Amino acid sequence: MERESVAPGACYFYYPRLVCVVGVRDEARGTVNFAPVAWASPLSSDPPLFGVCLSPATHSHHLVLRTGEFTVSFLDRSQAELAQSLGRLSGRDVDKVAALGLALDLPESLETPSLAAAYVSAECLLRERHHLGDQTLFVGEVQVVHARAGVFDNEGVLRSDVLSPLLYLGSRRYVTVDATTVTQVEVPA
Amino acid sequence: MERESVAPGACYFYYPRLVCVVGVRDEARGTVNFAPVAWASPLSSDPPLFGVCLSPATHSHHLVLRTGEFTVSFLDRSQAELAQSLGRLSGRDVDKVAALGLALDLPESLETPSLAAAYVSAECLLRERHHLGDQTLFVGEVQVVHARAGVFDNEGVLRSDVLSPLLYLGSRRYVTVDATTVTQVEVPA
Repeated sequence: MERESVAPGACYFYYPRLVCVVGVRDEARGTVNFAPVAWASPLSSDPPLFGVCLSPATHSHHLVLRTGEFTVSFLDRSQAELAQSLGRLSGRDVDKVAALGLALDLPESLETPSLAAAYVSAECLLRERHHLGDQTLFVGEVQVVHARAGVFDNEGVLRSDVLSPLLYLGSRRYVTVDATTVTQVEVPA
Repeated sequence: MERESVAPGACYFYYPRLVCVVGVRDEARGTVNFAPVAWASPLSSDPPLFGVCLSPATHSHHLVLRTGEFTVSFLDRSQAELAQSLGRLSGRDVDKVAALGLALDLPESLETPSLAAAYVSAECLLRERHHLGDQTLFVGEVQVVHARAGVFDNEGVLRSDVLSPLLYLGSRRYVTVDATTVTQVEVPA
């Protein structure tokens, strides 16, 4: 390709990515802190591991170390402003649940609620953490997934004709998918 | 929300995700092996770290351990069949570059080519690896990014009006973004 070479920090080559809201109990304040991250990924099928990156400077980082668990909640495209607000506020200063009037879904397997506004969420038990550069990768074992009825098909695939997931593009910009472009690819054996 | 509880393995809650094609030199065969992964994430800004998950059963896993580096190449929506073919073939049996007639971009900083068909690629030097469940997370330090001219704006954000990135939905299904939905969110200070 005709291409330009750019420094790693000057190009968000890895976006768009799903907005993943990490929830952690703040026992001292009797609330739950929610922080959006885009640097998150499944890490293993068996056991089912999901990893989220948090900066050691964040309140969430401190809380995960205390409680040993977290939830991940995924939003739809109408909730970009909520995601941006959750990222802008710090749980060190503000109870985001109270400040933003967040409704919670109670956990089933662990003790940390997720966002009721989420179309899908998962409860994760902290198994490992790895310090990687300026972030910590928290590795959670997924205990159970909670999905809004009708949003995933019988193969477990997101029905983008029903639900438009919120993706982050970089620089406070968000986008969603185009459901009309879904294609199933079959290649010769 | 009105929700259903499902087992982690029964719901692809973490999709859609960008298709990331990992390239690794196969020195014994004098070729480069390319394998698509969706389980990949930035891990740190400073230093710029990018992680990709590979199963120990894969040929790519074996090769990364030998060469200590890899490239990541990102495709557009027209290349879903290429991604699926790269995933279906094993580099243990087949030289995918020859079998699929792949054009390569030569590296600039390291020694591993990327896919010429990519709209953006990055050269990564292996820094760490972590065994996590049934996968290994290979952590690469991004040395340089190569972007097709005009695809990223002057803030380094993907121009989805110009380029439709290939995202994986699960179960051999792919999708892209809807450029008309890009929104920039400003929230009160």
